[in-house]
Amino acid sequence: MYINILGSAAGLPSKTRKTQSIILDMVNEINEYFLIDVGEALQHQLLKTSIKPSKINHVFITHLHGDHIYGLPGFLSSRAHQGGEGKPLTVYGPKGLKEWLDITFSVSETTLNYPVDFIEISDGDQFKVKNVDITLKKLNHNIDSFLYIFKEENQKGALNVDKLKSEGIQPGPIYSEIKESETFMYNNKVYFTKDFLGPEIKGRKIAIHGDTRPVEDINYLNLINHSDCIIHEATFLDYEYEKANDYYHSEIHKVLDIQKDLNVKKYIFTHISNRYEEDFLRQFINNLPNDILIAHDFLKVEIPRKI
Amino acid sequence: MYINILGSAAGLPSKTRKTQSIILDMVNEINEYFLIDVGEALQHQLLKTSIKPSKINHVFITHLHGDHIYGLPGFLSSRAHQGGEGKPLTVYGPKGLKEWLDITFSVSETTLNYPVDFIEISDGDQFKVKNVDITLKKLNHNIDSFLYIFKEENQKGALNVDKLKSEGIQPGPIYSEIKESETFMYNNKVYFTKDFLGPEIKGRKIAIHGDTRPVEDINYLNLINHSDCIIHEATFLDYEYEKANDYYHSEIHKVLDIQKDLNVKKYIFTHISNRYEEDFLRQFINNLPNDILIAHDFLKVEIPRKI
Repeated sequence: MYINILGSAAGLPSKTRKTQSIILDMVNEINEYFLIDVGEALQHQLLKTSIKPSKINHVFITHLHGDHIYGLPGFLSSRAHQGGEGKPLTVYGPKGLKEWLDITFSVSETTLNYPVDFIEISDGDQFKVKNVDITLKKLNHNIDSFLYIFKEENQKGALNVDKLKSEGIQPGPIYSEIKESETFMYNNKVYFTKDFLGPEIKGRKIAIHGDTRPVEDINYLNLINHSDCIIHEATFLDYEYEKANDYYHSEIHKVLDIQKDLNVKKYIFTHISNRYEEDFLRQFINNLPNDILIAHDFLKVEIPRKI
Repeated sequence: MYINILGSAAGLPSKTRKTQSIILDMVNEINEYFLIDVGEALQHQLLKTSIKPSKINHVFITHLHGDHIYGLPGFLSSRAHQGGEGKPLTVYGPKGLKEWLDITFSVSETTLNYPVDFIEISDGDQFKVKNVDITLKKLNHNIDSFLYIFKEENQKGALNVDKLKSEGIQPGPIYSEIKESETFMYNNKVYFTKDFLGPEIKGRKIAIHGDTRPVEDINYLNLINHSDCIIHEATFLDYEYEKANDYYHSEIHKVLDIQKDLNVKKYIFTHISNRYEEDFLRQFINNLPNDILIAHDFLKVEIPRKI
């Protein structure tokens, strides 16, 4: 599992930052990329990666501001000619998104050659895609804006091969049968599978935020606690608390202060304002601890399996 | 006057080509850039040039296919924060464009801080922006698609300074007064300005096409005759006449053949399909005469003044 930031700018792009698009790369796990937000030029960013648009079958929109959706019509249109023919796609997003896309495709006389399913989201919604549970929470912005929490299901632990062998059970197809069942029989003896399994493997949890003021609500903090990675906006970096508040955005230190008692493996702050010079950013990044990252376009971060 | 191709791809962008956007740079003449079509990521392309969005006050849309308009919402939104505040902008385009932008800005809760005037275009329309006459002609595509002809007004010739001096009229503010009037008086003698002017300077004529099949109509050919530069689509380069026709696009040799008796100073062919490999393109371009160019992104061509 990887996080791939394809657009790391706030509202205005810069020479080096496109507006927000994030890929949750689960090709190794479920052979899919999830795409969260589609800033303008996402389709061009994809051309610079090995990510095939036809392997993006689920798109999640956090909110309807232009810097998070203006790349969606172009991405969907081009996908039709980039191997997407006949491959269904689901778009999750706030009310209004479907109507806008319908009108956009009607005006530009665009017909897609694959089915698109729209799911209108609201606070507290829960979805499941393959083995990933998705939970939504409304944030605090000047338009409805959502947090998506992606949580892999927990998995059974590994088979204890030595212990199986000591019972005379040799490796073969029987091993996967054993793993799939609760009990199994060998030489007329009944065994419990759990006696041959290592500890349960916990699924990873990724929390990806739409634009928001910092949220202090205890339900929210409980939801994101124990995340393997939190992706949060940091339109402001330099202690401009009031300005951030006025614009319904976040300042990084405030977010970290509110979340200081949580157990979080890694932070990626993105949606970085173009007001900050490269020099300031470089120094700022150098002073951060290793588990706190400031995104740049094409930042790729591995989210390791839990042991 | 310059032509600046900022997006030279056909419907699908490639690693090196964005979809169609063209700048007609008349900063030296009237302190303005005209923008013709706004493919996705035009705002990002502009960041790589010295062109300020606030100096783009006139946008001309040839047709409503996505690869010609999906960059418009982002360009207009960002212009508001890139020096465009209070600077009016006019968008010329086919029916449906205004409604689409209204809905797009409504869905994304975008308010521009400058006035936008929409002008719905149709076949045969004529407009004037400063000293530029603009004439439209409907082309042959599977959606209403237009040719824009931009023609500078002719200008008076240069003052013959030697002749003025020989009459005892020395350089000074009087020279511009003389040039502005039909007759002038000096030492109680009446002169005709035309006797002191060099030959009239013909305005340049630029013909920029939306997507189209090659057009053979005689009215059209008369309209574009004597162009200083014709910009035409060439989605197909390799004699695929039938395929071009099926898709309502053009093959370059067919266009040149139809226009072979016209008097045209320069051709720029753009809207190049991503099917062509770099090697093919390089060889193809090498075999063209000097006055026929194949566009690439950021191709900049000077259109010299007429003598």
